[in-house]
Amino acid sequence: MFDNPYGTGQTTLTAILALTNLLAAGREFCIVGYGWVGKGLARAADGLGGRVTIVEVDPVRALTAHMDGFRVAALADALPDADVVITATGLIEAVPVGALGLLKDGVVLANAGHHDREIDVPALAAAAGAPIEARRGVRTYVLDGRRLHVLVDGALVNIAGLDGNPIEIMDLSFSVQALSAHHLASGAALPGLNRFPDELDALIARTKLATLGIFLDDTTDAQRSFRASWAL
Amino acid sequence: MFDNPYGTGQTTLTAILALTNLLAAGREFCIVGYGWVGKGLARAADGLGGRVTIVEVDPVRALTAHMDGFRVAALADALPDADVVITATGLIEAVPVGALGLLKDGVVLANAGHHDREIDVPALAAAAGAPIEARRGVRTYVLDGRRLHVLVDGALVNIAGLDGNPIEIMDLSFSVQALSAHHLASGAALPGLNRFPDELDALIARTKLATLGIFLDDTTDAQRSFRASWAL
Amino acid sequence: MFDNPYGTGQTTLTAILALTNLLAAGREFCIVGYGWVGKGLARAADGLGGRVTIVEVDPVRALTAHMDGFRVAALADALPDADVVITATGLIEAVPVGALGLLKDGVVLANAGHHDREIDVPALAAAAGAPIEARRGVRTYVLDGRRLHVLVDGALVNIAGLDGNPIEIMDLSFSVQALSAHHLASGAALPGLNRFPDELDALIARTKLATLGIFLDDTTDAQRSFRASWAL
Amino acid sequence: MFDNPYGTGQTTLTAILALTNLLAAGREFCIVGYGWVGKGLARAADGLGGRVTIVEVDPVRALTAHMDGFRVAALADALPDADVVITATGLIEAVPVGALGLLKDGVVLANAGHHDREIDVPALAAAAGAPIEARRGVRTYVLDGRRLHVLVDGALVNIAGLDGNPIEIMDLSFSVQALSAHHLASGAALPGLNRFPDELDALIARTKLATLGIFLDDTTDAQRSFRASWAL
Repeated sequence: MFDNPYGTGQTTLTAILALTNLLAAGREFCIVGYGWVGKGLARAADGLGGRVTIVEVDPVRALTAHMDGFRVAALADALPDADVVITATGLIEAVPVGALGLLKDGVVLANAGHHDREIDVPALAAAAGAPIEARRGVRTYVLDGRRLHVLVDGALVNIAGLDGNPIEIMDLSFSVQALSAHHLASGAALPGLNRFPDELDALIARTKLATLGIFLDDTTDAQRSFRASWAL
Repeated sequence: MFDNPYGTGQTTLTAILALTNLLAAGREFCIVGYGWVGKGLARAADGLGGRVTIVEVDPVRALTAHMDGFRVAALADALPDADVVITATGLIEAVPVGALGLLKDGVVLANAGHHDREIDVPALAAAAGAPIEARRGVRTYVLDGRRLHVLVDGALVNIAGLDGNPIEIMDLSFSVQALSAHHLASGAALPGLNRFPDELDALIARTKLATLGIFLDDTTDAQRSFRASWAL
Repeated sequence: MFDNPYGTGQTTLTAILALTNLLAAGREFCIVGYGWVGKGLARAADGLGGRVTIVEVDPVRALTAHMDGFRVAALADALPDADVVITATGLIEAVPVGALGLLKDGVVLANAGHHDREIDVPALAAAAGAPIEARRGVRTYVLDGRRLHVLVDGALVNIAGLDGNPIEIMDLSFSVQALSAHHLASGAALPGLNRFPDELDALIARTKLATLGIFLDDTTDAQRSFRASWAL
Repeated sequence: MFDNPYGTGQTTLTAILALTNLLAAGREFCIVGYGWVGKGLARAADGLGGRVTIVEVDPVRALTAHMDGFRVAALADALPDADVVITATGLIEAVPVGALGLLKDGVVLANAGHHDREIDVPALAAAAGAPIEARRGVRTYVLDGRRLHVLVDGALVNIAGLDGNPIEIMDLSFSVQALSAHHLASGAALPGLNRFPDELDALIARTKLATLGIFLDDTTDAQRSFRASWAL
């Protein structure tokens, strides 16, 4: 909930901009997927002056993107306008071979999802022939006369192209993993899938806030009593 | 998930600005509570040029507010700077009588939460004496020489002070209620608390998107197969 | 420089939303004109979750709008997508009679410019016949089966539809007028058009900041010396 | 007007984040100077989830920053809270030696202004002793037990630390320079300081928009006639 929207959102944009030295302002970003990563990407691209179109298959997420002020479109409607396409679906073929013909000359293709198969780079390579290395981390394929710039071969662009997520956001993720291991070792977990305990989430967040010098109020007895009874 | 962050966020700010004719730009907003309503309030206040401080007792929500770019503080630290205080906790005494002495001259107090007891107006009236009606919907109490402007007596300011939420966001909430009733009537619900079925949420969102002229892609067979196996 | 972008931007949006009770989030705003008023409108519409298209005849302003993250288009390309059209050109016929056929069913037309002739309401009335009053301040014309909702007959919507600009932003404008009169009376002005003296602008801003409790540093002697010589 | 707010704003933030691998979200940025560069920095820092305090000596600029939603403070009030300090004044000693004692442990110091003397690095080096190179481009000085991280020795961080401004924003600046030279060579300029002709600014912007596929409307005869007469 923290490393994806805040860490990956920022570092993916920073990596794309550092690798290409392009301007975000006025640029049309197509973001495929509006989960935690996609939300972070959209916020960062918008925050730097870009315009954002979201492609999403889940209707609740798509409606959220619409209400968040982003254009929502099917992939075939979104790609022809895109200056930068970023995939964040966790699935394969988020930009499938069949969609490559819709991309415009000069488009940048980058991936923020779990593996290097969201953009179908092998299919692109098969169709377009050998790319040239335009800059470090930027391979340019020419397909039907259009130049398609693929960043770090479709691998996670913030990790393969820059330094990955800041330690100060990964500390939260690592804390979840460490406390999960402790929870398991203590015998508190049941066989099967266990939900990470809310009180451990709260402990991690409270500890993090304390390191930032932020200390919270407690609910009062009167508030707890009201919450239990809903009686005014 | 939609009427609170998008509807109540906008209409609460619009109501406060319409009732007071104050400028949001450069104003310091203290928002008590960072649930769906508080998030919507913060986004709207920020979007109109205000500065936002969040008061929250839950550490995960507080850390989210921090990462969203808002100042997070305890109530006693937040109130002295506030030009506008908005409560959105769902509890009582979000601005308790003991905190009234921290408010500055000219502060505006408004409530966006479920009932009219988040700001302790009766205690304020007892301490300050009879208010004057400064404008329609604005009662001004004088406490120790400081003027405290309470909007619509601490009732929900977007409903008591303006027209409440737009129909185009309430349609989603009413659809949930109608389909819940249908779900109950069809005998599909179990005794006790039932989770609203995800497929009905999806149906509502998909129908709403269609009225907006937005039609989504489906996941492909290859994607569904990958999601089932996680094998590349 | 202050009342237009900050005051009129906010109050025009607030007035439109209060008059119509529509949701800004996800709505497509077409703003005609990207001067100080148009910039303020765009920022407010964007800040409340709307999507913004700018129509502008001046290329430097149009390029600024593009870099600010807004879509820029000719009127004929912008109108068919618009849910809300706001004029802010200071000219006549910003929405001319010839463009009315491009508007979609349910569009809201509002004016933020100097007079009530930016939207050609008389021509619309001639073409569409008598309107109905849908809500206070909202007249609905039916043209070729499409409903066009005109706010306060095309007058300045923030003044005719709500309370105009907040006093705390007009104080700056009134100060300019008062100090201009004093400047004239003191005999310091030359016949013809005079530029408002920078030192009076600075005086007004400094006084305003002091009322907000904000006090600025001065440049140091070393900095002034550097600025005079550019010698390190 | 374009390379500073849009180019330098983005690339300075990107360079700082790439050099340090810090998270912008939730971080407190102190930006010294609110000219075109400072505005661009503030927008980018805010857009990535940072909180921004502006230090400015000019009251009109300071009031603009306040209305834009940023905290405005004197340097001595701003520095103790800052996680990142960025100078953009064009002067010397924007962070003078006398202010170094106000900085907190772990602060990052970066410069976006014209030369490497905005942060008084020589004075810092004299006071703190030899730095260590914490990362490429990051020198860490220890002053009274507090670590101060100076980026690229106080040189322009977007140029010395990354690739400078994107070509697609510098094209505008280079066009101004080329057309200025042509204007001079054509004998149209007078001895002394000449204002760059508005029609050349318009030509550059119109050409740039055309490369982006954006074509503008013209004012109509009726509008030009109205603008000449102001008669309705």
